[in-house]
Formats: sequence, C-alpha cells, structure tokens
Amino acid sequence: MEDTCRVLFLPDNRYIVVPRGENLLKAAMDADVHVNASCGGSGSCGKCRVVVEEGEVEREPNPKLTESEIAQGYALACQARVLTDLQVRIPIESRIGDKRIFERKEPVPAHGYLLSAADWEKRLPHWELNPSTRKIHLVLPPPTLDDNVSDAERVKRGLAMEAGLRDVVIDYPVLQRLPNMLRQSDWDITVTVLDSGEELRAVRIEQGDTTERQSAIAIDVGTTTISAELIDLRTGEVTARASDYNAQVAFGEDVITRIIYATRGTGLAKLQSVVVGTIWNLIKTLVEQAGIEYCNITHLVVAGNTTMTHLLLGLNPKYIREEPYIPSATFFPWIKCSDIGLRIAAGVYLYAIPCVASYVGGDIVAGMLASGIFNTDKLTLYIDIGTNGEMVLGNREWMLSCSCSAGPAFEGGGVKHGMRATRGAIEQVRINPGNYEPMIITVGNRKPIGICGSGLIDALSEMFMTGIINEKGKINTDLPTDRVRATEGGAEYVLVRAEDSATRRDIVITEVDIDNLMRAKAAVYAGVAIRLSAVDMGVSMIAELLSAGAFGRYLEVDKAVNIGLLPDIGFEKMKFVGNGSLLGAHLSALSKDMLEKANEIARQMTYLELSMNPAFMEHYLSALFFPHTNLDAFPSVKKKLEARRKVRYGTGEAASAGEVG
Amino acid sequence: MEDTCRVLFLPDNRYIVVPRGENLLKAAMDADVHVNASCGGSGSCGKCRVVVEEGEVEREPNPKLTESEIAQGYALACQARVLTDLQVRIPIESRIGDKRIFERKEPVPAHGYLLSAADWEKRLPHWELNPSTRKIHLVLPPPTLDDNVSDAERVKRGLAMEAGLRDVVIDYPVLQRLPNMLRQSDWDITVTVLDSGEELRAVRIEQGDTTERQSAIAIDVGTTTISAELIDLRTGEVTARASDYNAQVAFGEDVITRIIYATRGTGLAKLQSVVVGTIWNLIKTLVEQAGIEYCNITHLVVAGNTTMTHLLLGLNPKYIREEPYIPSATFFPWIKCSDIGLRIAAGVYLYAIPCVASYVGGDIVAGMLASGIFNTDKLTLYIDIGTNGEMVLGNREWMLSCSCSAGPAFEGGGVKHGMRATRGAIEQVRINPGNYEPMIITVGNRKPIGICGSGLIDALSEMFMTGIINEKGKINTDLPTDRVRATEGGAEYVLVRAEDSATRRDIVITEVDIDNLMRAKAAVYAGVAIRLSAVDMGVSMIAELLSAGAFGRYLEVDKAVNIGLLPDIGFEKMKFVGNGSLLGAHLSALSKDMLEKANEIARQMTYLELSMNPAFMEHYLSALFFPHTNLDAFPSVKKKLEARRKVRYGTGEAASAGEVG
Repeated sequence: MEDTCRVLFLPDNRYIVVPRGENLLKAAMDADVHVNASCGGSGSCGKCRVVVEEGEVEREPNPKLTESEIAQGYALACQARVLTDLQVRIPIESRIGDKRIFERKEPVPAHGYLLSAADWEKRLPHWELNPSTRKIHLVLPPPTLDDNVSDAERVKRGLAMEAGLRDVVIDYPVLQRLPNMLRQSDWDITVTVLDSGEELRAVRIEQGDTTERQSAIAIDVGTTTISAELIDLRTGEVTARASDYNAQVAFGEDVITRIIYATRGTGLAKLQSVVVGTIWNLIKTLVEQAGIEYCNITHLVVAGNTTMTHLLLGLNPKYIREEPYIPSATFFPWIKCSDIGLRIAAGVYLYAIPCVASYVGGDIVAGMLASGIFNTDKLTLYIDIGTNGEMVLGNREWMLSCSCSAGPAFEGGGVKHGMRATRGAIEQVRINPGNYEPMIITVGNRKPIGICGSGLIDALSEMFMTGIINEKGKINTDLPTDRVRATEGGAEYVLVRAEDSATRRDIVITEVDIDNLMRAKAAVYAGVAIRLSAVDMGVSMIAELLSAGAFGRYLEVDKAVNIGLLPDIGFEKMKFVGNGSLLGAHLSALSKDMLEKANEIARQMTYLELSMNPAFMEHYLSALFFPHTNLDAFPSVKKKLEARRKVRYGTGEAASAGEVG
Repeated sequence: MEDTCRVLFLPDNRYIVVPRGENLLKAAMDADVHVNASCGGSGSCGKCRVVVEEGEVEREPNPKLTESEIAQGYALACQARVLTDLQVRIPIESRIGDKRIFERKEPVPAHGYLLSAADWEKRLPHWELNPSTRKIHLVLPPPTLDDNVSDAERVKRGLAMEAGLRDVVIDYPVLQRLPNMLRQSDWDITVTVLDSGEELRAVRIEQGDTTERQSAIAIDVGTTTISAELIDLRTGEVTARASDYNAQVAFGEDVITRIIYATRGTGLAKLQSVVVGTIWNLIKTLVEQAGIEYCNITHLVVAGNTTMTHLLLGLNPKYIREEPYIPSATFFPWIKCSDIGLRIAAGVYLYAIPCVASYVGGDIVAGMLASGIFNTDKLTLYIDIGTNGEMVLGNREWMLSCSCSAGPAFEGGGVKHGMRATRGAIEQVRINPGNYEPMIITVGNRKPIGICGSGLIDALSEMFMTGIINEKGKINTDLPTDRVRATEGGAEYVLVRAEDSATRRDIVITEVDIDNLMRAKAAVYAGVAIRLSAVDMGVSMIAELLSAGAFGRYLEVDKAVNIGLLPDIGFEKMKFVGNGSLLGAHLSALSKDMLEKANEIARQMTYLELSMNPAFMEHYLSALFFPHTNLDAFPSVKKKLEARRKVRYGTGEAASAGEVG
C-alpha cells in the first residue's frame, strides 16, 4: 500500500484511500463526498473549490483561483492530484444547499468493483505468452551444387533445425517472393509462421532479423462500437488503444436492421466494406499512436456477436433472424485479412472467436474466456450489456447462455445526448439530494459533450434515489429546481447547463431517454431471471456476478442494481469486467492456448432461445419499473428507499446519505 | 486373341497379327511390307492399291477406284479396315522399283513396343479409383429450435455421419453460399471434399445429387506442347483428349529463354497468363468434346518440368538458370485454380506434381510414377525426350536422375517442317531402299502437313539405313532420284511432294534439320552414358528401357536405336511409354494414393548436375554421329549396316531388307 494516500474530507469527516496521483474530484466522488462540479473536470466552471488544509497536491495553474486564494490553500478539486495524505475541507460555497450530516464511513477501495490485472492472473493461471504467430530468424547456408535443394526446402529445413517446426506449408505469395528475398538479404531472413491449430504456415518473409518487431491486434467488433488494442508480442503489453463507432450504425442501430440491409442486393458487401473501413481507421490510429510500422503486425483476433462476425467475414446473416435462427457458421477458419478487403501488410491473418448461436456470439465466448469462468467451481453469472444483452450462467462444468434484445441504449443509442465513452463523455454522476445539483466527471476531464453508458446508469440511479424520477421513470416537475423542466417533447432534467458544456447547449436526460433505458434494463433483467429459473436456481445461489459492456471505464455496479439492471445479490459478489470481449480477444491474440480454450468454450456452451419462451414477456413486464415491481427482490435498494423516505418525510436529517450513494 | 486378324501379304509372303479394325496400310507398315503411300493415308494419292484376295475389308468409297476394280478386289490400303483374316497382294505398281526378295518372318505384334493397358496394371498393382476430391450427397434434417446448430455445423455433421469425414474445413466461398443453397435445395445437397493429404476441405456445394457428374483433368505442361485429358471419376475413363502448343513458345522455344523473359519487368505475369490461356482453351475443348458442364470438373493435376511448373504457378524461375541452379520450390501445395487466373468453376483446385531439381521436374516424377519403376526390382532406364532430355536410372530402391538440354527438335521445333503430333503430322515413315520412295502414315490419316517427332526419327533412321545420309548427317545428292536435291540453303530430301501435301508445298527434311536432330540425340545419349558411368554400370546391365516423349502416338524404338538416340540394348528390353508425364498426372488425378506416391518419388530421387561434369562434353562429341563414333556400342545397327553394304556392293539381292526395317 506504499503508493496510496489517505484523503480525509471535512466537514464530512469521511476518508478514502486512493492511489497516489489520483484526481481529487474523483477521490471525492468515490468517497461519496459532494462537491459541485459542472464542467466534467475540465477546470472551466471553477465550482469545485476545496481547501487543502494538510498535505500536498499537484495543481494545474487555473485563472479561476487568485494567488492569494492559492496561498490560503484553495485548489480546484478537478485540477488537483493527490501527492500525500491529505486533509481537505469542502467550503460552503462548493456544497450549496447540502443539508446532509455526514457520518464516518469505511472507505471503499477506489475501483472497488473493477477486476484488476492481479485478479486476471489469479483467474487465468498457467498460461504464457505464446501467440499463434511466431517470428523465426534464420541465417541459412547459401546453396551450392552439392546442396542444391530448392529455396522453399532450404527455408523449411531451417525452420525445422532452428525452431523445431516441421511440415511448414509456405503460402504462395511468400513462395513468390522467396528467391529474390533470400539473395537480397544474403540468406539472412525472418519467417513469420502461423500455427492455425491445424497446420503450420509460413505467411511472411522479411530481410534480416525482425523478431523484435512483432505486434498483434485484438478487436471487439460491437454492433455500436469497435474497440481495438495493439499488443507488443515480445512483452505482451498493450501499446495503443483506439475505439470508434461501427460505421455500420448508419445502416441501422441494431443487428436486425443490419441483417435486413445485408440481405438486399449488394447490402452484405456494403456492410462488410463499411466495418472493414472502421477497423482500418482504428488500425491506422493504433499504428500512429505506437509509432510502429504496419508490417510489425502479424495477426488479428476479433470477437464480435454472431451477426457482426458474419458481416465482417462476408457471410450471409439472413437466417439469423428467421426462426429457428440459424447462423451460417459458428466456427471460422483463419482467414487472410486481404480476403475481406483489409490490407494491412503481406500475410496478416485474422481469427474470429467462434460463436455459440445466432444471438450468443464470439464476444460472449471471448468474455467467458477473459472472466475465467471455465476455470472456476463457483456458480457465476456473466452479463454483457451491449446492443444485445447476453448472459451466461455456469462454471467449469457447464455453461448456459441466452440473449435478449436490449437495444443500444446503454451504448448511447436512442438517448438524446447519449454517446460512447470517448473524451468529453460524462461517465460518473452524483446528484445532491438537497438541491438536485449534479457532480459530474467526464472521460479525459474535458468539458462535457454527452453521456455514456456508465454515466446514464449513474444518472438514472441518482435521479431515482433523489426522487427526480419515480418508479415508473416519470420526472417530478414540481421539484424546487430549474434543473427539472417540462418541454413540448416531455419533461427533462438538465445535467449540464449550456455555459458548462462543450457544445454550448444544455445536456439533458429526457423522459423518452428514461423510457428507452427502462426497456433495455428490463430485457436484461428478464434474461437473468429466466436463465436462473430454467435451471431452478435463485439469485442467492450466484457466487459471483461479472458485468461486462462498453459503458465507459467504470460501471458502478451498485448503481446498476439501484435501477434494477443487475440483480441485488450483494456488492461483494459483483465485479465490472469492462470490455470482456476485447479482453478475450486480447488473451487469444497473446496465446494460442487461450485461443484454443475459446474454441472449447464455444463447443461447451449451450444456448436457450428466449424468443419462444412464454415466461420471458412476463419477466420483462415485471421489470418495467425502478427497480422492479417486486421490490423485495431488491432488498438493498428497498432499504435505501426507506431511508430516503425518512429524510424527506420528517425524520429529519439523521439518515445517512452515505447509504444512498 | 479373338479380336485379332491374321493378314498375309503377297508376294512378300509375310504375315502379321493385328487388332480387328486395323488400317490395312498401318498393318503393312508394321509388317515391314512396302506399299507406296504419299498422302499420309488420306486416300488422295491413290498409290497404295492392293488386291484383297481372301477375306473381307471395310472400304471407304473413293474415286481413285473404279467399280470394276473394286469387283476385282482392289482396295486402297489406307482406306481399308481389316474385318477378317486376309490374304492381300501388293500389285507391282504399288511397289515400283522394289528389288527386295522377302523371306518369311515371325510376325511382330502390332504396337510391339508400346506399353499396353494390361502392362500398366501389372506394373501398378494394388491401387484403386480413389481421387483427391470426392462428392458426397447429403439429405440433411432441416434445423429446428431444438436442433439449431449453424448451417456449417449441420453440413459437417452430415459429412461425418454419411461419409465418415471428420474435421472438414469449409472454404469461405462455400460458407458464403451455404445458407441460401441449403434452403433453396430443401436441404438436399452435394458437397465436394478435397483431401489435400493435410486436411479435408469442402470446396464446393451444389443443389441435389450431383455425384454422377464428377471429372478431373490431367495435364502435361510441356515446354512446347500441352496435353490434357478429361477423366470421368465415376469410371476412371478418359472421355476427351486435347493438346496444343504452349502459347509461351512465342516468347522463346526453350526454358532458358522463357526464364530470361520471366525475369524482366512483368514477364513472369505475362508468361503465366499465356500458359493459363492455353490450358483454358484445352479445357474448353475437352468440355465441348465430352459434352459435360464446367462444374463437373472437381480437380486438376498438372505435371510439368520445373520451369513450366514455376511459370504456371507464378513462381520466380530466375535462379533455375544461374549456378547452382536452385528452383523456388519443388513441392507445391494444392492451389485454387482461380488463384492462377484459371476460372473453371467454383472451388476447383490444382495439384502440381512435385519436382526434384531445376532440371528434373514434375513431368519426370509423373513419368516415374506411370512407369512403375518405384515398384520393380529390375534396373530400369527411363528417358523422356522433350525439349529437355531427362533420364532416370533406378528401381524400387534408388533413383538417380539427370538432365540434358536436347532442345525442341523432337517436338518439331528447329525443324523446317516439324510439327507436333496433331492431325496431318507424319508419324511413321519407310523409305524404299531401291528407289528412295517413301511410305508415310499421318496422324488421323489426313493429307500431310508436316512431320512430328516419331516421324522425324523414322525418317532419319530410314534415310541413314538407305544411304540417303551418311554417318555425319550429310545428304548424298548423287543418288538417282529427284527426291534428293541441292538448294541454296543446303541439300534436302523431299518426303512429300507438293501435290500430295495439305499445304500444296513440298515437305522436306534439310541438312540443317538433320544437324539439329543430331545435336539433340547426342545430348540425350551423352546423358545416358554419363548417368550409367556415374554408377559404374554398363548398358548391358539395364533390364528395361522405358522411353517417353510427345513424339506422336508411337515411337519405334528400333528406329531411335538406329540413329543412336537410345542405347542398343536389345529391343525386347525396350518400351515406348508415350507421354509418361500425362499418364502420371492421369494416375494422380484418379488416386490420392498415386499422388502421394508421386510425392514419395520426388523425395526419393537424387539428381546429378551435368553442366559441371567435364565428362559430359566428351560423351556429347562422341555422339555427334549416326549412330555413334563407336559403332561397336551399337551391335544391332552395325549388323544392319553390314547387310546394307552387301546389298549395295555386289552380294546382290540376297540380303533381307526385312532386317533393315
């Protein structure tokens, strides 16, 4: 714990232990200490003024503070980084209207619900850096009249002698370049060999020793967002990250509209070229970020849902949406990137993580791999909330999956100011129950542009717990604040005022947004309920819940429980795993054993088709409430709501807002 | 022997046993009975008049015979087919100037030196029709919600259950067509599976049961000539044959000039597209001849020398001609025909028979396969006289190969009226030693157009044995015949006069032609000599000599010995195997075991580079003579020459011209 600091907030008298260098506003957020913050952490609103009474912070110079104020210890929380243990006082002007009395609370570790790197290592033991492609440096003896085997045989002999690789098949394009390459390089070459599991294939030849330059790319091909990582295969480290909307979004927001588009005329080819275009741009970004050459890249691993995988590979998705919902294929051989129009460098192959069924795809298989469920005895529920909501219940013995159509709401789709988790996206929200003023943090601490998934879940949870919305998701326009207002299109809550936003327009959450989000969360929860009831199990039997999705960096799983998106099983059993699909692709890119494990998972997993299940609609309708029509299923939320009622209706100021967080 | 007939020729009093239906002129040729014949068997010169005294022939109506002559039994030999045992008299006008007295001779079986189908079966036992591609008809159960595996998994399951084929990889283009195809065909499909030796690959899918429609194509890609056969894989029978000049000839006659062309600019791509063009035209011809569809074709097997294989596959041949003579590759994976620009039908793959070294290619390996040498204990010499002369000495234990640059002379190149063995090519020649008049038969019994390889060897042998040319290949212009004449370009022999030729021009053999042929045969013989001396063996130790080459349908090996092209080891040990390369490709197309055997042969064979061998030039110079400077190495030829000398210089008419044949 040497690299952590203890921050005590006054007058709340609440402390938190954070990593050294943590942003002070973030520390306050995590400690459930309210500081007014309107600009997302960009330093422009100047509202998050605090006084550092003890200890040291690193401050960004900011015109909102005078020299005399700085001398008195004033700092903008969002512009300060924690260097030592601190005692910080929130002055009255930074917490206007706050009537809460704070009690001492046990600190929650920062990132408490996130799986850490150490967690992964514990979950996935006994594997090593052993990627599907391998570069082998060969210095071959030049041919003579006595040793006159063909160039190809000479290379194969070298691979056998130097690396123990036998029966390597040489790709035709490599064969075609071989004679000149060997002689130009004076018989000093590097051969890239792909181990497809079926055969060894020489896919590239380069002059000299290039073994120090080898990278792979892992890609999560989401319906809405595509995320990619560049991995240095010498070290296993991620050297660049990039993500962007899947450009197919222009052709329909969900898989169904994409499938319909694909089955008309040249629609499939169009959608394929569009997603390849997005991936190409991401690869360009990665290569530029990391300052490498395209030819350093030796292979790609992609994980996507079944439809995305079909569209990327140019496979007909038509029958995915027609009963009985049959994909063209669920396992996909290694394919040359150039065969799908992705021209990175010579001999780059791509592997698509296998799918299970039409609505349980390679993204879920990759997530299962990443989460290590195949390696645990504990009954685990894995939920991936993307455009579809997929979930898997199981352990090392068995895995049962199902899928519900959640829609893109949690990825920012169908939400007025929704956006994906890029810079300027509001990713954390607190609302002061006294005056309904928000405290927000954006990705990259920029002026806010919109709201990403985790921000939406936070906002919904806070609006519900502070009474801005009721159980049916309707906004209470009678509240004494101008942040709530009625418009022609319905009521809305102003999360960011125009003067604080990057867009110079109010950032709001509308009743229509809330309705979309409600339906999405209800579909997910109904899926969980039916998956459990199908095996005669209850929520209490779940030993661990892993939640995945491209919400942003953090999903606060307690907030997701507050709105009834995730079941209320106790926070100690819950972890947010981030983009599990990307992580599984990442692991498969690093290790052919992991890749083979992904294949095993896909073979092992069984699938329940929800669309034909009459109980599903029943569960769904019951979940169209915050948190649920059956409040007893959410005991921790029930308790919080009761505490809130006491505050509001007369038992005064004694209740702890800390419990509301 | 039920389907044979005995033909007795008078006044020669010589008989021969021939297949029923044999052409009567051909029967006379094989029986060494001279009949004047100038038009190649086309029926236009009317010179080959014979009288059928007993038995029946089938005659083509011909204006050269009157009804009264027919009533007397006259027939044109070239227009008559043998239906029963015959007694045939050659009238004096059909044998003008013939002074020979004929003695009774044991009949030589027709096609005496050809390997028969029965021979092949004896040489290549224990293999069966088992091609690398297999069509499997599947009637699959349609998917249901309970049986909702992907289309690809359903097909794989069907292949495993119906045909025991497991772990079949499905080609992407097949995957792409799969969903619609399965539903349009009501789940009744035929899958073509390629067994590459490494893996099973589904390469095509068709509606309904197409298992009755499956053909392969075997191709010999020669430097000068490309020959192809269409094989019905249900029966193993050849249903069409076609051959044509390799259109690359326009870019150079031999492999060296082609390699030079290929290494300049886009030369390689040009040569590849040109040879692919020739092959495409041949396939078109085969398909039209057999009346099949292109989509009946499921795979191709090609055999060619190392350079031809490189050019076909688009591999760089540059270092084949530079010391130490290294090919890009000698083994070639199965490749999609469309990848080399050959678009026959979906999913047609091609296998190239492996090569041994730069100058011992897949054509030789195929020939070794076809000849069954890998299966015999007998010391065998295999000689393939194409544009290069390659030879292999060995048996089932070992195989030693070498190659000499013979040039295209025996394929008709560098010979004034040389041509390949297509219709109208003179393929057999006899010259009457009394009056120097020729007797010729053409391919297809058409009016002669030119002379193919076997005709050239016959003509050289006859010209030499009748004294038209001497040991140095010089024409004796003092002979009392206008068929020999001096021209500005040197002396020449008129084989066909303008009025009998299809071209309306004389067909001649010039001294320049003879010189080219002499050099070619010397290179071949020097190769044989050096190959034997390298293992301290003599000609007498050869138990069998197999001669291959695209000479025409027949090479008369005794004629090849007369000119010193083949060693004089006794005719009973010699067989002409025709196009061994094509036959090996054919066998490999029929049977994956044979194809694997070809791979084994290529691995097993060792190669001797002649170019660096100082003894080679010595052997070559000694062989620039008919038959050789050392006449004692050719005892049978020596004996014939002595007999000829007796006839000419005074011992009168007692010598048997039959021995000269």
